[in-house]
Amino acid sequence: MKPPTPGFAFEVVATDGAARVGRLGTPRGVVETPAFMPVGTQGTVKGLLPSEVEATGARCCLANTYHLWLRPGAELVASLGGLHRFMRWPHVILTDSGGYQVFSLASLRRIDDDGVWFRSHLDGSPRRLSPEESMRVQALLGSDIAMVLDVCPPADADRDELDRAVARTSTWARRCLAAPAPDGQARFGIVQGGMDLALRRRHLDEVCAMSFDGVALGGFSVGEPPAQRWELVGELGPRLDPERPRYLMGVGTPADLLHAVAAGIDLFDCVLPTRNGRNGQAFTWRGRVNLRQARHRADGGPLDARCDCLVCHTFSRAYLRHLFVAGEMLGPRLVSLHNLHFYAALLREARRAIAEGSYGAFVRRTLCDFEEGDEIGGSASASVPSAGE
Amino acid sequence: MKPPTPGFAFEVVATDGAARVGRLGTPRGVVETPAFMPVGTQGTVKGLLPSEVEATGARCCLANTYHLWLRPGAELVASLGGLHRFMRWPHVILTDSGGYQVFSLASLRRIDDDGVWFRSHLDGSPRRLSPEESMRVQALLGSDIAMVLDVCPPADADRDELDRAVARTSTWARRCLAAPAPDGQARFGIVQGGMDLALRRRHLDEVCAMSFDGVALGGFSVGEPPAQRWELVGELGPRLDPERPRYLMGVGTPADLLHAVAAGIDLFDCVLPTRNGRNGQAFTWRGRVNLRQARHRADGGPLDARCDCLVCHTFSRAYLRHLFVAGEMLGPRLVSLHNLHFYAALLREARRAIAEGSYGAFVRRTLCDFEEGDEIGGSASASVPSAGE
Repeated sequence: MKPPTPGFAFEVVATDGAARVGRLGTPRGVVETPAFMPVGTQGTVKGLLPSEVEATGARCCLANTYHLWLRPGAELVASLGGLHRFMRWPHVILTDSGGYQVFSLASLRRIDDDGVWFRSHLDGSPRRLSPEESMRVQALLGSDIAMVLDVCPPADADRDELDRAVARTSTWARRCLAAPAPDGQARFGIVQGGMDLALRRRHLDEVCAMSFDGVALGGFSVGEPPAQRWELVGELGPRLDPERPRYLMGVGTPADLLHAVAAGIDLFDCVLPTRNGRNGQAFTWRGRVNLRQARHRADGGPLDARCDCLVCHTFSRAYLRHLFVAGEMLGPRLVSLHNLHFYAALLREARRAIAEGSYGAFVRRTLCDFEEGDEIGGSASASVPSAGE
Repeated sequence: MKPPTPGFAFEVVATDGAARVGRLGTPRGVVETPAFMPVGTQGTVKGLLPSEVEATGARCCLANTYHLWLRPGAELVASLGGLHRFMRWPHVILTDSGGYQVFSLASLRRIDDDGVWFRSHLDGSPRRLSPEESMRVQALLGSDIAMVLDVCPPADADRDELDRAVARTSTWARRCLAAPAPDGQARFGIVQGGMDLALRRRHLDEVCAMSFDGVALGGFSVGEPPAQRWELVGELGPRLDPERPRYLMGVGTPADLLHAVAAGIDLFDCVLPTRNGRNGQAFTWRGRVNLRQARHRADGGPLDARCDCLVCHTFSRAYLRHLFVAGEMLGPRLVSLHNLHFYAALLREARRAIAEGSYGAFVRRTLCDFEEGDEIGGSASASVPSAGE
C-alpha cells in the first residue's frame, strides 16, 4: 500500500469496542468521525444554503458525479473553478463514481468489461462511463475524495451475477487507481458482494489490499431488511483496515447509523434527512414525527425540545404542519434543515459517548427513546435507496 | 374624521413634487415610506425565513385574510397567539379583507348588499364573507392594519356594475368602521371605480371623508395597460388626503412603483418579486433577467453587480441558472430573496432621491437603465394580478 494522498491523514483518537472516534485530515480541514455527509446531488443540498449546511456541523458533503456530469457538465464546472467554487461549499466534497446512478436511473444499460453504455435519464442521449471516465469527471469537478467506479448489481441478483459484479469492481478499482489524479484528491475503494458474507469478505480483503485512502461498503440500503444489514455490517466493519476511514454508502436511518458506528464505520451519506424532510417527516430524539398529522394542528411546542436548531428554537409544530398542509416551500426547507441538524447531533453525541467509553449505553438509551417517541419508532424502518436526489 | 388609531401616526418628512418620504409609526415600530410590503399569503413569504425578509429592509408584510381564514383558520391562529407569533414576524402585518380573493379564486359567488356567498377554492365548502366577518377574522389574526371589505368587479365590468360595486364598497366601508376593532389595529379604506376617472374621483372623496387611518387604491393590476394605470394613479394619488398613508394595492413592476411614488403613493404590495423569482426571473438595476436563458450558462459574474444582497455576493449567474434548469428549490429561494432586496433597495433609493429633491432625475435614470439592461426593459410589461400566492 502506498501512503495516503498528500494532505490526507486519518487518525483514530478513541475507541469503544469496535466503535471509534477519528479525525480525517484533508487539505480543506478536518472532518471529525463518525460523520454524516449531507447529500448535494446536483451541487446543492436541496433547499439549503452552504452556510446553513455548515451550521449543522457538517464539514463534508457528497455530490453525485452522474448528475453533475450530465448537467451542467463537468467541463463547465471546471471552467468556473471547480465544484467547491460553483456551489460555494468551502469544506470537503466527496463525489461518488456515477456507477450507482447509471445502475438505478439510466435506461438501456449495456455493461462490458471496459465500462457501461447507457442512455441519460434526462434526454435519452447515449453515454459511456468507464473507470477512467469516472476519474476524469471527478477530477474536473475537483472533489476532495473520489470514489472508484463499481458495479452495483440489483438486490435480487443471483450468485453468478454477484461474482461477475465483484470481479469487475476489483478490475475497475485497479484501473481507477492507475488513472491520473489531480493533486489533493484522495480515492476510496468500494466493497461489493450483495448479502453474501463469504463473497463480501473475499472482496473486502481484495479492496483493502489496494492503496486507497479509504474503503467503502457499497450495495447496502437496496431493500434488504435492516436486521440483515446490521448483521452484515457488524461482520464486515471490524474487518476493514483500522488505519483508513471506513464509509458505509447510502445508509441510513438514525438506528442504522448507531448500529454501523458500533461496527467501526466512520462515514455515512444518505438522502433520508433531506428527502423525508421535504415530505414533512422529521427525525427527532423521540423518533420520527410526521408533521402532516392532525395531532400537530394546535401544538404550539417545538418539533424537538432537545434540539438546538433554528427551526426548533423558532417555530411551532402547528406552524410547520400548516406549511406542509398549505404546500408552502418553507416547510421542506425547515424540516430538511432540522433533520440535518439532528443527524449531525446524533453523531456528535455518538463521538462523545465513544470517547467516554459509554457507547453501548448511549445506543440502548437512544434507540429506546426513538421507540417510545411520540409517533413511530425510528429504528425498525428500512432506509430508502439513494440514487441521488 | 377621528384621530388615527392610538399607536399609529403618519408624518411626511420630505416632498419632491407629489412624491413624498414619510414615517408610518405603529405599535410595532416605524415603516419608512415609500415602502414595499412583501406578500406572505399563507403566513409565509414563500420560501423565506422572517429574518431573511427583515434583512431586505422590509418592516411591513402583507398576509391574505382569505387564505388564512380557510387554512389553518383564524381561530387557530388566534389560539396560538396571533399571526405575528404564528409566523414569527415581529414587524407590521397588513391583512387584506379577503374580498379580492373571493372575487378571483372562489367559485359560485353570490353577492348581495349584506355580503357574499362563495365556495372555498380548497374544498368547495360554502362560506359567507361580510364586512363584519372580515373585520372579525382580521381581528383574530391580530394584524396591525386591517383593510375594509370591498367589491372588486372584473376588469371588463360595465358602468352599471362599477357603480354598484362602488356603492357597496362605500356601504361596507362604513360597516367595517362600525365593527369592533382590537386595540392597536388600524383600518384602511379602499377606493374602487375601475378605469373611470370621474367615478374614481367621486369614490375617492367618499372614502377620504371616512375616518380611516389610511386610504388605498384598489382594482389596479387587473389587466389594464401600464400607461393607463400610470395616468390614472397620477391623477388620483395627489387627490388622496396628504395627511394619511396612501396604499396602491397589488402593484407592481419596478416601473409601476417609480411612477406611483411620483404620484404620492406611500405603500405597495405585489407578488411579482416572489412569484417571478420562483420562476427564475430576477429584477435588477439593469432590467429583468431570465436566469433560465442559455447565455448565463458559463457566466461566473453576479446576478446584479449593483446589488449587495447575499445572493449577488455569493453565487454566480451560471450557478443560479443551473439551479433552475435542474429544478432545484434553492433557485426559487435565492431569486425571491434577491428580488425582495431589489424592491426594497429601489424604494430606499427613491426615498433618498425625494429627500434630495432629485426624484425626477432618479426615475429617468433608473428607467433608462432598465431599458438598456441586459435583457428586457422592466418598464413596459404589465404586472400580474395578485390573488395571493
